[in-house]
Amino acid sequence: MSKKPVTPILDRVHLPADMKSLSDRELRMVADELRAETISAVSETGGHLGAGLGVVELTVAIHAVFDTPRDKLVWDVGHQCYPHKILTGRRDRIRTLRTEGGLSGFTKRSESPFDPFGAAHSSTSISAALGFAAARDLGGDPGDAIAVIGDGSMSAGMAFEAMNNAGHLKKRLFVILNDNEMSIAPPVGALSAYFTRLYTGAPFQEFKAAAKGAVSLLPEPFQEGARRAKEMLKGIAVGGTLFEELGFSYVGPIDGHDLEQLLAVLRTAKSRATGPMLIHVITKKGKGYAPAEAARDKGHATGKFDVLTGVQAKAASNAPSYTKVFAQGLIAEAERDDKIVAVTAAMPDGTGLNLFADRYPKRIFDVGIAEQHAVTFSAGLAAGGMKPFCAIYSTFLQRGYDQVVHDVAIQRLPVRFAIDRAGLVGADGATHAGAFDIAFLANLPGIVVMAAADEAELMHMVATAAAHDEGPIAFRYPRGDGAGVDLPVRGVPLAIGKGRVIREGGRVAIVSFGTRLSEVMRAAEALVARGIAPTVIDARFAKPLDRDLLLNAARNHEALVTVEEGAVGGFGSHVAQLFADEGIFDRGLKFRSMVLPDIFIDQASPERMYEVAGLDAMQIEARVLAALDVAVVGRRA
Amino acid sequence: MSKKPVTPILDRVHLPADMKSLSDRELRMVADELRAETISAVSETGGHLGAGLGVVELTVAIHAVFDTPRDKLVWDVGHQCYPHKILTGRRDRIRTLRTEGGLSGFTKRSESPFDPFGAAHSSTSISAALGFAAARDLGGDPGDAIAVIGDGSMSAGMAFEAMNNAGHLKKRLFVILNDNEMSIAPPVGALSAYFTRLYTGAPFQEFKAAAKGAVSLLPEPFQEGARRAKEMLKGIAVGGTLFEELGFSYVGPIDGHDLEQLLAVLRTAKSRATGPMLIHVITKKGKGYAPAEAARDKGHATGKFDVLTGVQAKAASNAPSYTKVFAQGLIAEAERDDKIVAVTAAMPDGTGLNLFADRYPKRIFDVGIAEQHAVTFSAGLAAGGMKPFCAIYSTFLQRGYDQVVHDVAIQRLPVRFAIDRAGLVGADGATHAGAFDIAFLANLPGIVVMAAADEAELMHMVATAAAHDEGPIAFRYPRGDGAGVDLPVRGVPLAIGKGRVIREGGRVAIVSFGTRLSEVMRAAEALVARGIAPTVIDARFAKPLDRDLLLNAARNHEALVTVEEGAVGGFGSHVAQLFADEGIFDRGLKFRSMVLPDIFIDQASPERMYEVAGLDAMQIEARVLAALDVAVVGRRA
Repeated sequence: MSKKPVTPILDRVHLPADMKSLSDRELRMVADELRAETISAVSETGGHLGAGLGVVELTVAIHAVFDTPRDKLVWDVGHQCYPHKILTGRRDRIRTLRTEGGLSGFTKRSESPFDPFGAAHSSTSISAALGFAAARDLGGDPGDAIAVIGDGSMSAGMAFEAMNNAGHLKKRLFVILNDNEMSIAPPVGALSAYFTRLYTGAPFQEFKAAAKGAVSLLPEPFQEGARRAKEMLKGIAVGGTLFEELGFSYVGPIDGHDLEQLLAVLRTAKSRATGPMLIHVITKKGKGYAPAEAARDKGHATGKFDVLTGVQAKAASNAPSYTKVFAQGLIAEAERDDKIVAVTAAMPDGTGLNLFADRYPKRIFDVGIAEQHAVTFSAGLAAGGMKPFCAIYSTFLQRGYDQVVHDVAIQRLPVRFAIDRAGLVGADGATHAGAFDIAFLANLPGIVVMAAADEAELMHMVATAAAHDEGPIAFRYPRGDGAGVDLPVRGVPLAIGKGRVIREGGRVAIVSFGTRLSEVMRAAEALVARGIAPTVIDARFAKPLDRDLLLNAARNHEALVTVEEGAVGGFGSHVAQLFADEGIFDRGLKFRSMVLPDIFIDQASPERMYEVAGLDAMQIEARVLAALDVAVVGRRA
Repeated sequence: MSKKPVTPILDRVHLPADMKSLSDRELRMVADELRAETISAVSETGGHLGAGLGVVELTVAIHAVFDTPRDKLVWDVGHQCYPHKILTGRRDRIRTLRTEGGLSGFTKRSESPFDPFGAAHSSTSISAALGFAAARDLGGDPGDAIAVIGDGSMSAGMAFEAMNNAGHLKKRLFVILNDNEMSIAPPVGALSAYFTRLYTGAPFQEFKAAAKGAVSLLPEPFQEGARRAKEMLKGIAVGGTLFEELGFSYVGPIDGHDLEQLLAVLRTAKSRATGPMLIHVITKKGKGYAPAEAARDKGHATGKFDVLTGVQAKAASNAPSYTKVFAQGLIAEAERDDKIVAVTAAMPDGTGLNLFADRYPKRIFDVGIAEQHAVTFSAGLAAGGMKPFCAIYSTFLQRGYDQVVHDVAIQRLPVRFAIDRAGLVGADGATHAGAFDIAFLANLPGIVVMAAADEAELMHMVATAAAHDEGPIAFRYPRGDGAGVDLPVRGVPLAIGKGRVIREGGRVAIVSFGTRLSEVMRAAEALVARGIAPTVIDARFAKPLDRDLLLNAARNHEALVTVEEGAVGGFGSHVAQLFADEGIFDRGLKFRSMVLPDIFIDQASPERMYEVAGLDAMQIEARVLAALDVAVVGRRA
């Protein structure tokens, strides 16, 4: 796709230990070559580009100064780890990033000892690093603990919880605040404004001495960092009061692309720190690659692209994405009802709510990476008379689970949960799978849980949610493009708890919940070809269940198979509970419940992941045939 | 139980509106009478005493100054709301607190319009109040929004998320920090130390003027607060930088038992605030009742007691509590393995880990109200080579769910989850029910999920968890006292995924998961009396299931009934999935799964709650008989 860069110095670095003999000047060259290699690799694989480019110098400096993997380096989120992977023995596989059998797009314990703690969700690094530090001090694994966390990730409550605990425990711990003023979306929140004040008040070139805190651990000059270390004496801890109040020494702000300064600061910090220290590093997301620097999201995530032009190779699709359809549906509802508002936790683009924001800028709230608050804030909005749509990916809604139970469900507040990325998600792998939401939502009293079978259904479910004021309601839909069906201008509210029969047949009823319906229909066609004409039902609702429809289907068929894009405990389990309660199993029913298997599935194409999961058309067909005890004479290709 | 206090002024206050005509001097008398009435009521009902006594003056002042319920007063946690309930039309029912059919021990929307947002879990109030404020500004319900939050609750991440968002949105909002240096346990964390510095640096009597922030909204003198308001001019905003950095005006510290000052400050704040304001109020938990003030937990929660002596009427029990047995079991394991450490989120007493702390003070971490961090910190400890027991109530583990999935389960880290308060909990009601943990844990790949049938089993499960290094493991047990069985000195590790047969029988197998086993055995005796000798199995494991045991039971019985103290999606659902996969239902099995019903069950005795839930011996027996189609001739009494 593009010519590989020439990297003579980097070629000598197979592991971080190989950097110990390099001069600071050579380390600078390593950084430059590492940047080129990162750009080249991501141009072939796609993935998170901007974040990695922003920490090239930081990555080099940390590995040069600290003794990884003995010292535990924990990257928050982990999507900035591509340069780290290149330096830690994985350069030969870096062009397999995010592909089946290849490297993960995040840090991953099973991949390398240089990834002591994996990530993918944000804001976990300080907790994990503090755990390493506490373990060390109790006789566990030795070594320093270093968390590298972005400014956006600092808005999440768990990062604050960890800072609060670290300041209390006073253990030696390094938190490097990678401040690029840019998480996925432009940052929001008072803390972010505070960070900005910290460094806008103190340009790198004219640090002023400060009286307290970090000064006490400042450098006696030593080694080659000495000259810069002396400069730092004048330049540290201008601000940082907030961190000092939390018990941290504050050092910064530091220019994160000035390798010499980074090396000096880290060497000093390593030699002198006794308690928790926050090192505030200013970086530019996408640094050193013009197309990324110029992009609105600073090259946050990209497809494969041409290195020279930055132009991405875009997959062709005729259907709009579910995400976009959700946004269109919500805008259509909001046009008619000014009580409708939207809430996102730092994902306006990913949830499609950027489109809503363009239309109704005063009716959207981006609360930052703060899912717990997002849910309860939505509950407050609902209690105050609004109709909030709280749009959170399935996997991130796990962050707000207690709030869904305690603040929304128990109070029966009509919060609408728009759950994107339901089911398996492809290149982001197991950490981003939306596997558990059906199970963890559908057993909450009073909630309504829907899944869209296609994008038109999604429009109807948005309308259903808008019209539903009696309590909480959730609808889930997958990542990716719709099925290509015709879209209504506006959705029509569905009858709560009513499914629909897609085709009538005999012997077996296949009951689908969600977008597996298309695979179910393919399976149905194959079954027809074998002389078995199945009934196919789109359940639409996991809660409340369409009791009559399901009980009749059970009574009128020899077998009934449920299919869903979720783990056990969800739709199929609720159906089983209904059937058990009603004595359906007493006289025999060939009941099967096809769910995600009991494994975490690594990254691959979504199609391939569903094949691994056993949820594609062929395996649905096979399951039906096995249930019906039909001998299969020759498999289809 | 005790003579009711004489309360002539309070008797005239039926609703807060009745306080508008009272002078400040009369309001002071209302406060005194309110304190006496609160003590008297709790002496009869038991419940949270200390927290309410600490906010008597604050409660009077807020209702006197603000226009509730038009203004939305949101009490964090809500356990300090007894005085609030007395003032807001519920005095006639205050002696029904926490009893069946009586008032909730927390705020509750369905109970009164003066409870605009219910609570019970901590740290939700700022999010909710901000939701009200945002709704108001978009044309929703009018009125001010006031959150009252304790210093302990501020350690939870979601409070920080809400502060961060509020500082960004700049909406008029009042956050009253009720700083009593005492949540349930003595406070931990750097933030708490910061609060202390704020007020120890600024004694109430000699406030110093500060240059910025809150000064701009200081009082032109008006009404009767004028004299004090003038004093305040000198006394506000000594510290509070941390809050100011987050975009809040800071006012304080204020003596929370000086009603005159409180009234002046709140009147001023109400008339002048434009954006978010934090009012820092110093109170004493248990204020005004010597036995509570003297208690280690400041009278946090109490049984019924004698008002004069403070002596509690203690229910007699011969068996130790599950909580204590857990602690004893953990100490026994920790004696032999110095890698064992314990983690609690601000509940050392509630989890029994105070006993562990007495023995091993360096091997326990109280991280504050911070369940998200507690889980990932535990994961870090495990990754660092330790064997962490993370003890969190079932209902609070909901706060750390994503961390269980993302940081523990995906990485297969051997964190041991000790899940207290599993199942229904009695007086704390629906918000504290441990209903969902089986479902939300058991579908995570690689985890082991156990439930103890009695306290000896709990000892064995602690030992099992200690010995299990292959991945995460969880064991759940209920609130309250054990069954009274003999306890081993130390537990013996169980075979993973193996249940035990309690009694062999025919026709029906009853498979219990957890402490319903005693009710199951009572049901079995009753069935034997009817000529039906059931098999009874203690499953021990919801994951991995004992496949052989369960499949054989299914094949050798006409009916199989599962019983668990959890919602649908849990143990019974996993059994149903196994049976479906294995074709057990094909030829017919009278399968029933007895789970918590699809309602939130209000407070009552645990026994009564399980009766409501349909999970007592009689209803288990009835379910078996119905499944077997046995006509019941005459019910037992």
